[in-house]
Amino acid sequence: MDMQTMLYLIPLCGVLALLFAWVRTRWILRQDSGTERMIQISTYIREGAMAFLGRQYRVLAIFVVVVSALLAWASALEQGSSILIGLSVAVGALCSALAGFFGMRVATRANVRTAAAARSSLNSALRVAFSGGAVMGFCVVGLGVLGLGVLYLLYSRLFAGPGIGDNEVMHRTITVLTGFSFGASSIALFARVGGGIYTKAADVGADLVGKVEAGIPEDDPRNPAVIADLVGDNVGDVAGMGADLFESYVGAIVGSLVLGVNAELAGGGGGYTPMLVLLPMLLAAVGILVSLGGTFLVRTKEGGNPGNALQVGSIAAAVGMLGATVLVTRWLLGDQLYVLDGREFGAGGVIGATVAGLVAGVAIGLITEYYTAESRRPARSIADDSRTGVATNIISGLALGMRSTAAPTVVLVAAILVAYQQAGLYGIAVAALGMLSTTGIQLAVDAYGPIADNSGGIAEMSHLGAEVRGRTDKLDAVGNTTAAIGKGFAIGSAALTALALFAAFKTTVGLKVLDLTNPTVMGGLFVGAMLPFLFSSMAMRAVGRAAFRMIEEVRRQFRSIPGLMEGTATADYARCVDISTRAAIREMVTPGLLAVIVPVAVGFYSTEALGGLLAGVTASGVMMAIFMANAGGAWDNAKKHIEGGAHGGKGSDAHKAAVVGDTVGDPFKDTAGPSLNILIKLMSVVALVIAPLLR
Amino acid sequence: MDMQTMLYLIPLCGVLALLFAWVRTRWILRQDSGTERMIQISTYIREGAMAFLGRQYRVLAIFVVVVSALLAWASALEQGSSILIGLSVAVGALCSALAGFFGMRVATRANVRTAAAARSSLNSALRVAFSGGAVMGFCVVGLGVLGLGVLYLLYSRLFAGPGIGDNEVMHRTITVLTGFSFGASSIALFARVGGGIYTKAADVGADLVGKVEAGIPEDDPRNPAVIADLVGDNVGDVAGMGADLFESYVGAIVGSLVLGVNAELAGGGGGYTPMLVLLPMLLAAVGILVSLGGTFLVRTKEGGNPGNALQVGSIAAAVGMLGATVLVTRWLLGDQLYVLDGREFGAGGVIGATVAGLVAGVAIGLITEYYTAESRRPARSIADDSRTGVATNIISGLALGMRSTAAPTVVLVAAILVAYQQAGLYGIAVAALGMLSTTGIQLAVDAYGPIADNSGGIAEMSHLGAEVRGRTDKLDAVGNTTAAIGKGFAIGSAALTALALFAAFKTTVGLKVLDLTNPTVMGGLFVGAMLPFLFSSMAMRAVGRAAFRMIEEVRRQFRSIPGLMEGTATADYARCVDISTRAAIREMVTPGLLAVIVPVAVGFYSTEALGGLLAGVTASGVMMAIFMANAGGAWDNAKKHIEGGAHGGKGSDAHKAAVVGDTVGDPFKDTAGPSLNILIKLMSVVALVIAPLLR
Repeated sequence: MDMQTMLYLIPLCGVLALLFAWVRTRWILRQDSGTERMIQISTYIREGAMAFLGRQYRVLAIFVVVVSALLAWASALEQGSSILIGLSVAVGALCSALAGFFGMRVATRANVRTAAAARSSLNSALRVAFSGGAVMGFCVVGLGVLGLGVLYLLYSRLFAGPGIGDNEVMHRTITVLTGFSFGASSIALFARVGGGIYTKAADVGADLVGKVEAGIPEDDPRNPAVIADLVGDNVGDVAGMGADLFESYVGAIVGSLVLGVNAELAGGGGGYTPMLVLLPMLLAAVGILVSLGGTFLVRTKEGGNPGNALQVGSIAAAVGMLGATVLVTRWLLGDQLYVLDGREFGAGGVIGATVAGLVAGVAIGLITEYYTAESRRPARSIADDSRTGVATNIISGLALGMRSTAAPTVVLVAAILVAYQQAGLYGIAVAALGMLSTTGIQLAVDAYGPIADNSGGIAEMSHLGAEVRGRTDKLDAVGNTTAAIGKGFAIGSAALTALALFAAFKTTVGLKVLDLTNPTVMGGLFVGAMLPFLFSSMAMRAVGRAAFRMIEEVRRQFRSIPGLMEGTATADYARCVDISTRAAIREMVTPGLLAVIVPVAVGFYSTEALGGLLAGVTASGVMMAIFMANAGGAWDNAKKHIEGGAHGGKGSDAHKAAVVGDTVGDPFKDTAGPSLNILIKLMSVVALVIAPLLR
Repeated sequence: MDMQTMLYLIPLCGVLALLFAWVRTRWILRQDSGTERMIQISTYIREGAMAFLGRQYRVLAIFVVVVSALLAWASALEQGSSILIGLSVAVGALCSALAGFFGMRVATRANVRTAAAARSSLNSALRVAFSGGAVMGFCVVGLGVLGLGVLYLLYSRLFAGPGIGDNEVMHRTITVLTGFSFGASSIALFARVGGGIYTKAADVGADLVGKVEAGIPEDDPRNPAVIADLVGDNVGDVAGMGADLFESYVGAIVGSLVLGVNAELAGGGGGYTPMLVLLPMLLAAVGILVSLGGTFLVRTKEGGNPGNALQVGSIAAAVGMLGATVLVTRWLLGDQLYVLDGREFGAGGVIGATVAGLVAGVAIGLITEYYTAESRRPARSIADDSRTGVATNIISGLALGMRSTAAPTVVLVAAILVAYQQAGLYGIAVAALGMLSTTGIQLAVDAYGPIADNSGGIAEMSHLGAEVRGRTDKLDAVGNTTAAIGKGFAIGSAALTALALFAAFKTTVGLKVLDLTNPTVMGGLFVGAMLPFLFSSMAMRAVGRAAFRMIEEVRRQFRSIPGLMEGTATADYARCVDISTRAAIREMVTPGLLAVIVPVAVGFYSTEALGGLLAGVTASGVMMAIFMANAGGAWDNAKKHIEGGAHGGKGSDAHKAAVVGDTVGDPFKDTAGPSLNILIKLMSVVALVIAPLLR
């Protein structure tokens, strides 16, 4: 098979993923939506979620148009750049937005059908929820591969011509393609920050006034913020996580492409290295096929453990990917040796690096699970410390989060060193790709969580009875574990992707070394290390302000709507949804602009300082992300542990302390922490995109 | 004046500082100690504090002997090293320990005399408290300069001989002298960590059981942990801060020496640069004289503001030091130009760099004051957020701490860039020195705080009446502000000192560049960035465990000692003191060893990795230190603001929330945060000390 044929096959795999998503969507829509009340509730949720997405995308459209135009203009002035980079940015943003749009549309239909299916059996409920997640997962990988693949074909046609070598065409194509990753990152940042603010404002509002002040249970229809809370699960966990992994996925591919095109054939003489460019795209395409296969293994029996079913699917996909990587890489690279940045490597090294990435991804996920799971010692020790009050609960959670940075860092560093030893800087990029090649099924598992969570809420609000609620609770509990693992995985892949983009930046900008003993680099490092702190603070304060407005509104409704507490009047759900939406959109702007403007400003001051900044923001951002995600997750599960009957159970003093810890952990784990994943990738990709202008 | 004469004059300035400390001590001891009850209480405090120091030093003696012996042995095997480095370590540790010993002895005598003097006037109380602080301050600078100066003379005698040039003698002398800084750092680490654990275990125990459960006021003699709490102020804030600044002070001098001896005369040909070696020692010596002058300006009137009096002293010293720096530098360096690491500089550049350091120190102090002071918006916004409960108080404090990293980082980076631009790497070292040259009076002001605090406690326990208590409260309130500024100053100077030591490490180990795009360096950076998180977690958990034991004991005493609550029986203070002491000693060991072993292990794996580690630990450590110190300080003052009558005052729900925030902040600001200052310097100095073995 020649290269041209393969280049056409790659986007076809993307199309296949989208077809699969479409088939699953049709199947989901054919399922029963339950009673009229269920349909009504789910309509509220869907409308709220789609309204948020619509408004968010309108704001982002302005941002993307302005940035694309600026970049196209700046690039047009610069020799060797192309105004087409603006197109890449726009298409990247569009693909990310479309993935979010489709994924959320289906997720907000799958939730009610999951609840309806739970009336008959656990397995059918699992299948609906997982199918909903799979639509999100395969939209992400499908649009990623399709978008990149088509743009690649398009650009290489446009650049080709008489008097220009294949190598030069490939170089130009890939330089322009980096914009795709930047487009994806911008959407991701706003989706994560905005979604995170939305979901936590609604959650805190619903909990503090509804559960604590009014004393009504979770997901009670009398609570005016309950719909906003359910919408929040979708915009934060479905759309947010989707955009996050879309960004990592695309970033890892683009980073590999840039490093691949800058490599040379070993043995001197340089030359044309199309195989190293083809390989990452082909691995991504094959990853789609393998993930597809994995989805068919996800099924369970009544009384069975849905968690096992999901694990069988992911593990099978990972093992399959391992085999596929060996075959594809050996076949494509053969015995040819390559050299990049003074290091030689061949097929064996590339395989080794990919395996390092895959293993590290799994290991970091499992470590995260250990630190946050309800059944493990760390979360239980927080529950124990809740007995002596709120202060000890908080200190215990903060200390746990800080401590939990150690093991993932060691794993990450080991993966970096192994990948580099195996295949140089290219190895680091393919390690990230190895982690992310099965994103299709990984994300399906992740997005399953909020759908299951939503179905529980709908079951509760529609009074479906204890047996049904028991089934949805079982699905939901699994969702909490998969969410923890997914968060660890997202952080690990973000770190590796950021490093791959960092290496690509260095290669593009032509920096031979980035000397840490140069105070300009050190200054950049300090500023970079500071940014995740500043950014987290902004995100947390935004949640605080938004939650405050929500609290006021919920209190107002309880006060002024007669019959609400008695259940004879309906709450004004729409108004709460609107408050969350407005607040999230308004509050996402400043942190978002900060993340884009700082690297540009620093880069034009000094390329060395920008290099230091990227290293600093990555190192400190990864620590803060792990710290916040794990502290938040552990606080949450410590509370659940007490609610399960430990230390006096619900209503005890220990429980009250644990509730406070959980509330503090909410903006940690669902707003600030996950936003940092994006921050580190976005800054690297901004640097990579402006790199040709800095040379 | 020739160099030899000056080299003798330098230790004489150290002697002068010690003489001054001795004179102040005699004066303090002549003051009235008040009533029999006051004497009795202060005896308890003094005995507790000295017992802790004694036990701590016994443990440290073993550590220092083992480490000195290991280093001497390893150095003896290595060409170009000397076993005398073991002696340097031991003397450095001894000097630090002696400074702590003298400072604490006097502080625990000044406290009761301050209370006694407060019976007559505010000014006389201020003078006693400030004199007590001054003894600590001048013991630190005196022993630092004396120790370094005498060792310098001794080693240069020993190394001199036929067939060895002056340049080579100076090189060897300074290489061996680095051990002095390492000795100082080891003591500092254990003093900070141990002292921090001690003081917070006692404080939390006293507060939670005494104030919250038993409902008795602060510093009430019925509280069994009250003496331990007062002892804690001394071991944490007097001895801990003293050891911290001793380490920075010595580290900045040693860093300058190493960089000075590695510089060359400009214009090619290399050569002998004694003036760059003499300069840092001479600046330190002159700083002692200027600080001495400043102390005479600290006086106030009845009804006056003691804060102004302290500020007049420090500012006069800073301005005086500015002038002295210009004169000394111009005189010593003349028109000679030097070159280090490819950058040329002369007297003007050195002066510029020193000024940059001085200005940055003051600016960082003021920024810290802004973020933590009771009268400013940041702390007040935490007080506002306490109205909606504990969770919002905690989130607000955490967000504030994170946000507060931004401005100090910008100031620090600006100082680094200016200093480097003015005088290359040598400039960074003298900037640190510029910040620290007036340590004598700075530390006097810092150590004044806990003495004033203690005097208030003694006044309360001895029922001295409202007027006296009013005066001590006034002194104490000023102490809170100076403590905040002092903490900012300690962090800023730690960062610059660490960078100076880092530059010295790079020069010594002969690294031309430390390439951040080398994954080994990047791996080191990640591990380095992680360590402050792990270390903070260990410190916080240690406080938690120690506090738990204290809580149990205080509860036991209230339960089992009949008449304690009624005031007819005396609490068993000694037992609480003993619990704090044992816990602090036991808990300081693991984090202490971690800080020493990790850089050694990483260094022997790879010098590049060690370089990355140092950069990572410094960048992330500075952020964490600022975050924790400022969050803790602001929580404390938000509580004070509410206690002053805001939002319902004492006993309101807002107050209860603020008390929890303050409790969470305690291990932040008094244990983990300040320990990080030491961590970053210690790791750099360990690297510098083992550098000759890594070449």
